[in-house]
Amino acid sequence: MNKEAPIGVFDSGVGGLTVVSAIRKQLPNESIVYLGDTARVPYGTKSSDVVKRYAQNCTKFLESHGVKLVVVACNTASAVALQSLKQTFSIPMVGVIEPGAKLAATQSQRRRIGVIGTEATIASESYQHALGQYAPDALVFSKSCPLFVPLAEEMMQDHAVTHTIAKEYLADFLEQQIDVLVLGCTHYPLLLQAIQRAVGSEVQVLDSATAVASEIVSVLKNEQLTTTSKDSQHAFFATDVSQRVLKVGRAFLGDALGAVTLVDL
Amino acid sequence: MNKEAPIGVFDSGVGGLTVVSAIRKQLPNESIVYLGDTARVPYGTKSSDVVKRYAQNCTKFLESHGVKLVVVACNTASAVALQSLKQTFSIPMVGVIEPGAKLAATQSQRRRIGVIGTEATIASESYQHALGQYAPDALVFSKSCPLFVPLAEEMMQDHAVTHTIAKEYLADFLEQQIDVLVLGCTHYPLLLQAIQRAVGSEVQVLDSATAVASEIVSVLKNEQLTTTSKDSQHAFFATDVSQRVLKVGRAFLGDALGAVTLVDL
Repeated sequence: MNKEAPIGVFDSGVGGLTVVSAIRKQLPNESIVYLGDTARVPYGTKSSDVVKRYAQNCTKFLESHGVKLVVVACNTASAVALQSLKQTFSIPMVGVIEPGAKLAATQSQRRRIGVIGTEATIASESYQHALGQYAPDALVFSKSCPLFVPLAEEMMQDHAVTHTIAKEYLADFLEQQIDVLVLGCTHYPLLLQAIQRAVGSEVQVLDSATAVASEIVSVLKNEQLTTTSKDSQHAFFATDVSQRVLKVGRAFLGDALGAVTLVDL
Repeated sequence: MNKEAPIGVFDSGVGGLTVVSAIRKQLPNESIVYLGDTARVPYGTKSSDVVKRYAQNCTKFLESHGVKLVVVACNTASAVALQSLKQTFSIPMVGVIEPGAKLAATQSQRRRIGVIGTEATIASESYQHALGQYAPDALVFSKSCPLFVPLAEEMMQDHAVTHTIAKEYLADFLEQQIDVLVLGCTHYPLLLQAIQRAVGSEVQVLDSATAVASEIVSVLKNEQLTTTSKDSQHAFFATDVSQRVLKVGRAFLGDALGAVTLVDL
């Protein structure tokens, strides 16, 4: 593997750009190829067979761009497809679930951890599994929050309806007395305020993007794949490019996306 | 074309089953092959190029099943892809927009017509165009309602949030003094109560499924394709089959779906 090759990152849509943003901060010299499967978004309401197939398509695309590492920056794809991707491809892979689970394990004092995600992510029990490994003494409570993705896509983070839905989805966590809540979907950081308000200020809400970036730093080190170049370049690809993709993408990246190239997988 | 062949119906998901239900009532002897592109749902937030490509895939699938007529039971696909489908395929085609527009033209007394639909449908201005033909004297007001599809998919028709969102989306129509509102998306009939409450009882809310079925009756007559058999059979295909698809599908069809065969387009 060539250490000057880019890092490949894919997501079902633009949510994974929060991970790109975190990678850029920790690894400013690394080049990134991002693929958003925006034509087939969302993955989180779909069956695992379909998500696996789409994840294979995305990884193949990134492989054809010669990436040295693939970041599955989508919780649903990490939850249901990461194992099968690792079996198919020889490129090192980083998912978003293990880093998030590790972070929660170190942060939780009360050993009562909440996890929210899409239907597919929660149904896969991947977080329960990962937390069973990193925090075997902790109680884990999980909840799927299906409307959070459309609310984030509609940029309704400040809308009263978002607060109502957040309160409803997250009410059980109050009784369960969690002290840490993992945002198990890359769309959710956009709704951080409503989520924080619903669970109360004492609960630490964890966005795993930073943890994922730290994991990438160590994988690159271990595999001796850290770039020595100072000339990073980023390329953005999507299976559908619309005004919506550019607008919502900007909100997730925290920066203008620049040119996005349309691809058909 | 063989008059004993089935009618083909496709939609981005399960919303088109409201059209199947209406066809069954008016044409109980006709066999139907239904395809829901549930792996790639929704279409309404996607660009017209992507929707055109997917609509071509769906029509090709139905053609391979020897259908005598294709019903594009998805407003978004009808709005952006029907013309290009007609150019590609020689099978007779019925979309959902013209029948809905015709119905609105006959029902509106005040000649002030409202239309709601997905972003893609509204942006296409297809209803404006069709109403310009059938009701050239009417004023047309339109509004995209992006959260209605996820709310219907979540079966939240009775939830307070749905009423709040409906009020917000539809508030302009009160000032615009429409007397007819066209439901320009096959998902919306599930939210009929909230929509009716938001626009007030004096506005006639039109679900075009029945009008589409009537259009099919006359196309079959004109083309001499009405079946003479009494032995109708229905087959359901989907690009993703999940518990969600079966549950929501049942709500739209008003009947159990029975066996749904998974296909990869």
